[in-house]
Formats: sequence, C-alpha cells, structure tokens
Amino acid sequence: MAELVGNVLVGQSGGPTAVINASLAGIVSEALNHECVEEIYGALNGVLGILQEDLIDLAAESQQAIRGLRHTPGAALGTCRYKLKKQQDFDRVLEVFKAHNIRYFFYIGGNDSQDTADKISKLAQQQNYELRVVGVPKTVDNDLVVTDHCPGYGSAVKYLATTLRELACDNEAMGQGDLVSIVEVMGRNAGWIAAGAALAKRRDHPHDPPHLILLPEIPFNQEKFLEDVRRILKRERFCQIVVSEGLTDADGNYVAAESATDAFGHAQLGGSGEFLSEVLSANLPGVKVRVAKPGLIQRAATHLASKTDSDEAFQAGQAAVRAAMNGETDVMVTLVRGETDHYSCETALVPLSDIANGVKKLPREWINEDGISMNFQFLRYAQPLIQGEVSVPFENGVPAFTHFGRDRVEKTLPAYEL
Amino acid sequence: MAELVGNVLVGQSGGPTAVINASLAGIVSEALNHECVEEIYGALNGVLGILQEDLIDLAAESQQAIRGLRHTPGAALGTCRYKLKKQQDFDRVLEVFKAHNIRYFFYIGGNDSQDTADKISKLAQQQNYELRVVGVPKTVDNDLVVTDHCPGYGSAVKYLATTLRELACDNEAMGQGDLVSIVEVMGRNAGWIAAGAALAKRRDHPHDPPHLILLPEIPFNQEKFLEDVRRILKRERFCQIVVSEGLTDADGNYVAAESATDAFGHAQLGGSGEFLSEVLSANLPGVKVRVAKPGLIQRAATHLASKTDSDEAFQAGQAAVRAAMNGETDVMVTLVRGETDHYSCETALVPLSDIANGVKKLPREWINEDGISMNFQFLRYAQPLIQGEVSVPFENGVPAFTHFGRDRVEKTLPAYEL
Repeated sequence: MAELVGNVLVGQSGGPTAVINASLAGIVSEALNHECVEEIYGALNGVLGILQEDLIDLAAESQQAIRGLRHTPGAALGTCRYKLKKQQDFDRVLEVFKAHNIRYFFYIGGNDSQDTADKISKLAQQQNYELRVVGVPKTVDNDLVVTDHCPGYGSAVKYLATTLRELACDNEAMGQGDLVSIVEVMGRNAGWIAAGAALAKRRDHPHDPPHLILLPEIPFNQEKFLEDVRRILKRERFCQIVVSEGLTDADGNYVAAESATDAFGHAQLGGSGEFLSEVLSANLPGVKVRVAKPGLIQRAATHLASKTDSDEAFQAGQAAVRAAMNGETDVMVTLVRGETDHYSCETALVPLSDIANGVKKLPREWINEDGISMNFQFLRYAQPLIQGEVSVPFENGVPAFTHFGRDRVEKTLPAYEL
Repeated sequence: MAELVGNVLVGQSGGPTAVINASLAGIVSEALNHECVEEIYGALNGVLGILQEDLIDLAAESQQAIRGLRHTPGAALGTCRYKLKKQQDFDRVLEVFKAHNIRYFFYIGGNDSQDTADKISKLAQQQNYELRVVGVPKTVDNDLVVTDHCPGYGSAVKYLATTLRELACDNEAMGQGDLVSIVEVMGRNAGWIAAGAALAKRRDHPHDPPHLILLPEIPFNQEKFLEDVRRILKRERFCQIVVSEGLTDADGNYVAAESATDAFGHAQLGGSGEFLSEVLSANLPGVKVRVAKPGLIQRAATHLASKTDSDEAFQAGQAAVRAAMNGETDVMVTLVRGETDHYSCETALVPLSDIANGVKKLPREWINEDGISMNFQFLRYAQPLIQGEVSVPFENGVPAFTHFGRDRVEKTLPAYEL
C-alpha cells in the first residue's frame, strides 16, 4: 500500500455527549504520531463548517487544551444537525477537501452522521479522489447497530444512576407513603437510557428505587400504571419513577408528543413526566407528585463521566486514525466486548453502510415480565460501562473547561450558499 | 451553672439539603465529647417521630455511618412538614421528652422548624421542665434572617453553577443563534438560588452564560423578555436562561402557579420554565427551546457539595451542642462572616424568636439595573460559599451512602392519635 500523504480533517456531529471530546482528543493525539499527516484540521459545526470552509488548525492548539478535552462537555468543534441534501452539497464537500488536501476524514457522530460519511466516501471514490473516511461512534442513545455499545452511553447512565440514588435519599426522607417522584429521561425511540436507571439499585435489592421504569418498548397502560404505583406506595415511603421521553400508548403514539420536528424529521418530544403527573393527580388525589427533567444536563455532565466510557471514547478516536493509516476507508470503529466474565473491550471496524440509519433496539428479553424493571442480562451488559470516575479540575468552585484558540485556516474558495 | 445530666434528642425537618446530614454528624460527634450526655437519640421524621415516640439510638450507629453522613444526601433521620397545631401536640412533645429524660433538643431546619423549636422551648419553661433547645439552620433557599447565609445554600448553587457551565458547552456546540436553553430552579419567594447561577460566569466575562436570570424579585415583563432574548441571540450562538420557580407577573401572581398548597399554606409551584418556553414559541417562531428542570435533584447532589458549606454545616452542629452544654437555650446557631477580605466564618447564637417566620430577601441593590444579572456585591457574597469539593466514595460506579441501622428506643407511652 502506497503511503498517503496529506491533511486530516475531523468533525463532530449531532447531539454532544460527555465524552465526544475524548474521541476528538484521541484522534488529534494519534494523528500527531504519523508522519504522513501534514496538518490536522477541525471542521467547525460538522458538515456546515466543511461547506462554509470554516476550518481551524488543531495542531496549533496547546497540549493543555487537547488534554482538557477529556473532561470538557459539549462538542469543542461545534456540531450541527444539518443534513447534506442535494448533490451540490456533496460536490462542495469534495471541493473543500481538494482545496485543503484533506486525505483523512474522521467523523464523530451517530447513525445519521455515519450515513453522511458513507456518502462522502462513495463520492470521493467515484471521482477518483483518494480519501480515507473513518467514522467514530457517538451517541447517548446507544442505538447504533453492530457496536456492542456506544461511547457516550455509559456516562449518561452513570449520571442518571448517581442522580437517582441521591434523589431517592431526598424522597425517602420526605415520603410517608404518599410521594411520587418522577424523572423524565432522554431516549427517543429506544429505552437504553431509561433502562440504565436500573443501575441505581443495589445488587440483589430489587425493591430499591427506581421502582418503576417506563420504557418506549412497553406501551403505557394507565390501569396497570396506577395499580403499580398504589402497590409500591403501600410498601415504600415513596415511589420513584423513571420515564422515557419516548413513552407511547397502545397505538404507538407518544403520550406527550409535540408538533415540531427537527431537520431529520424526528419528532421533538417532551413532557412524558408531566403527563404521568397529571394522570396521578387525577386518579390518586392524596398523592404528592414531584417531576424532574434533567433534559440536556444528562448528556453534558462530564463531572460524572464514566472513566470506562471516557477511555473507550479516546481509544475509538485513536483506532480510527490507525485504521486510516493502515489503508482502511468507508468504515466505522466499533467496540467489541471480550468474551470472558471479566469485562474487556477492543475496537474493530465495520463498513459504514452497515451502520447508517440502522437502530439497535433494547432486547425485549432483557426487560422483566413485569414490564417495569430490567433483568440480570441488562445489568451484566450495562454495569461495566459506568465503572470508574473522571477527575475534573475545579477552579474557584466550578469546573474549568478547555476552550479552543480556534486558529482559522485561510479560506481559498468562494463562499457557498446553503 | 449546675450541670444538666440527661439525654440528647436531635431531629431534622423540612426539605433536605446536600449538607443537612453533615449538621447531624456535627451534633452526634460533639455530643459524644460531653459526659453529662447519657444517650443520643434521633427522632424519626422530625416532630412526627417525637409525637409517635419513634426514636432511634444514634450512639449505637457505627462510626463509619456517622462519618458517611458527610456525603449522604437526604435527611438520614427522615424529615416532615407536619406543623404542631394544637396545644395537645405540644403537651405530647413534652410528655415524650420527660419519658425519655430528653434535656437537650437540637432541631435542624428552616424558619418554620425554628418556630416550632421556640414554642417547645417556651412550653418547657412554663412547665418548669429543664430543657435546652438549640436550632441549627438549614435551607437551600438561604432565606433565614440574621445568619449571614444558611448551610445548604452553597452546595445548591455550586450544583447549579457547575451544571449551567456544563450545559452551556452543549448549548454552544448546538446553537446557531437560534437556541434558547431554559433551566428552572428552586426558590419559592426569594431569588437566592437563581441569583447563584451568576457564579457560572467567568470573572470579568459578563457576557458569559447564563445570559438571563429571571428572579422572583423582578416582575416578569414579556416585552422586555422577548427583546432581551432577541438581543442575546444576535450576539451569541445560544441564550441560556435561568428562571426561578417563583417568577411573578406585575400583579405579584406566580406566572405558573398551581392550585395545591402544602401543610404550611405555601403554594406548590412549578412550570415557569415551560411558561417561558410557550412565550418564546408563540413569539419567536424560528427559535428552538429546550427546558430542563432539575427539581429536587439540585438539593440532593451531595457529590457536588461545597466543602465550605459541608464544613460549616458540621461546625454549626458542633456549635449547637457546645452552646447547650454552656447553658444556652431557646437560641439558633448563626453563621457570621469575618470582616476581612479573606473569607472566614464563625458561629454565633440568636434567640429563636428572632428567626422564626422571618424571611431574608435578596437585596435589590445586588441585582444590576438590567434586572437580569447580579453585580459584584452578590458575587463577593456568594463566591466563597461554593469553594472546595467533597470527596464521595463510589462503589460499582455509583456513590455509596450511609444507611442507619435504626436501633429503636423502646416506647414507654401509649400511642398518640395525630
């Protein structure tokens, strides 16, 4: 294989996670090890930055800043939900790549983003422009197919399990068999995040909170719900409920859908917690209900990131660079779990087309028969993903984050109309 | 002064804070140092436990458990919002005290609780029952009069400032001048908690998020609000808004009041975040709005407790015991800030009647003229209260908390009808 000399471009796409910047750090630090890499650029706001030629020089950033990415939430390069639509957009991407001699493109994102990367890769092949495209998985939703799990998921559920445990102490102190505490969590179409709430329970304490986990996989049944709450309030001082934003009724409609949709046509959800609160107030008048909705906080809480997740996100970034240097293209890095009882994880590669637009469902057989709790198979899967803590530096009482200097790469092309 | 030999009783009341258990630890560990203390009892669920003679033996708890209180959220003894109403209730309290030779009563709570402690103390004096009553301040709301600040407040605003900083990274990555991120925070009648959001800004960076802080002290003006948001979205990629649950309109009505009230007649609030979201959607159609409502999570987040706050809560507990041993009664411990520039804090004592039912307002002169940000006087006040981090032990990926063994004290009286 002939060595491919040229520049690296990295972009971040979709919703941030607590560890998407760790993958960026993995890519930048690994790319520095390879002599055929001349420049390391970052695209601001994903494909938007490529279209608009908004690139920054990542090699110019301080080592401190790159290291600080390991504990900085958000997406340091900015991200976008813009979908490349027309052929013209794709042609522009290639034009920008050629103008800046981009030969290695790393895209950190979920399935929509890997679909975009796949299309860019195929277009480059058509045009005989030598380009290596490697995707790095990222999503709190954990719904990418093929990979055992996704960087971002472990930290989101570590945040959730920690928060539920703390909240349960508060609820237990206040409850007198009359308190229902509802936490609405993310998860549009799959209950991976809500299921992760089960990690708040102590081992072999099935009656520990959260007492009810309401998943998108199990249609909401009001009679059963009220019966479950009544039963738990007879036994416990409070009833802690975790509900997915994507809870649906028997017809498959979201219980709390709103009308707006995003650029990809996904429904914007919210309000399943308030929905349950109203159901309870209407039917169990003596009960006090408290609703919390951490919203985007649950994917930004780097101070509670899982060290396992953060390390794997970093390694996925490194693996992407090494794969590209080995001549791989049009692939995404996956995480492969070792087969022994002691958890271990390695990276592998799959074609981007295997990932793009697939959705990994939470296995039905990991949900208990009662429909409101997770069994040992889920716990065995998820427990290793939240192990270890990340040390975040505090300055003056609050966490100190990395901010890029953002040394702009000079534009060489005419402006592009979106 | 004759030495008063007898038993200690401690109770916790009202909403928990991240450090209410640190005060309990301070009381228990200090009480062990005094020979005139024979037994150390805890009342389960505040005055409810006293009325029902539900007492536990705190000296029987392990040293590990007492130490673990320093990083355990909730209220380890349980708490209540029950208000002693009738004379019969007060007589019962004294009857229980006499039955168990309670000579020292420590009550950790807010102004309602200190009012209760005051009444118990006065009744004991009337009945010539020698009893020393010392209150320990506690409230995330920071609205107790006389004391410089309240244990619990520093940790709540450290949680808030940390979370806002993390969320801002996520918002900045996603925003393109079209994103409004709203966080609804606690604070029924005073904006102390919402004001604390200002601690998320870097020093001398007034344009840092949060961009708008909406306080109960400043009536909501829709025109000005929309103008503020429009201006910020022209300048920034996103607009981060912190809104107090107690936001009111020009007539003093809560913008999002609900009908239910608690046992003390306080309105149960919620929904000011959703209210703003609706105002924005109706008036700025191109704008995406995200609402988060941490709810009770913000007072339970011991893993983000301020070390300063936790230490002061512990010291307030110790000081209460020392005061009682010195013959003081019918007083509450207060925190007194040193007068030098370098922050220091000592405890003092004030009569319970000076505290009971007073409310400390956020000084109007600490709010900037724009009505949406805090000035240096507030920052100088609040900054020292969030300094330092508390180390929380994690086990299997989640924090490990103290659970009391709850060795019950034998009941000697007939049951009491509430």
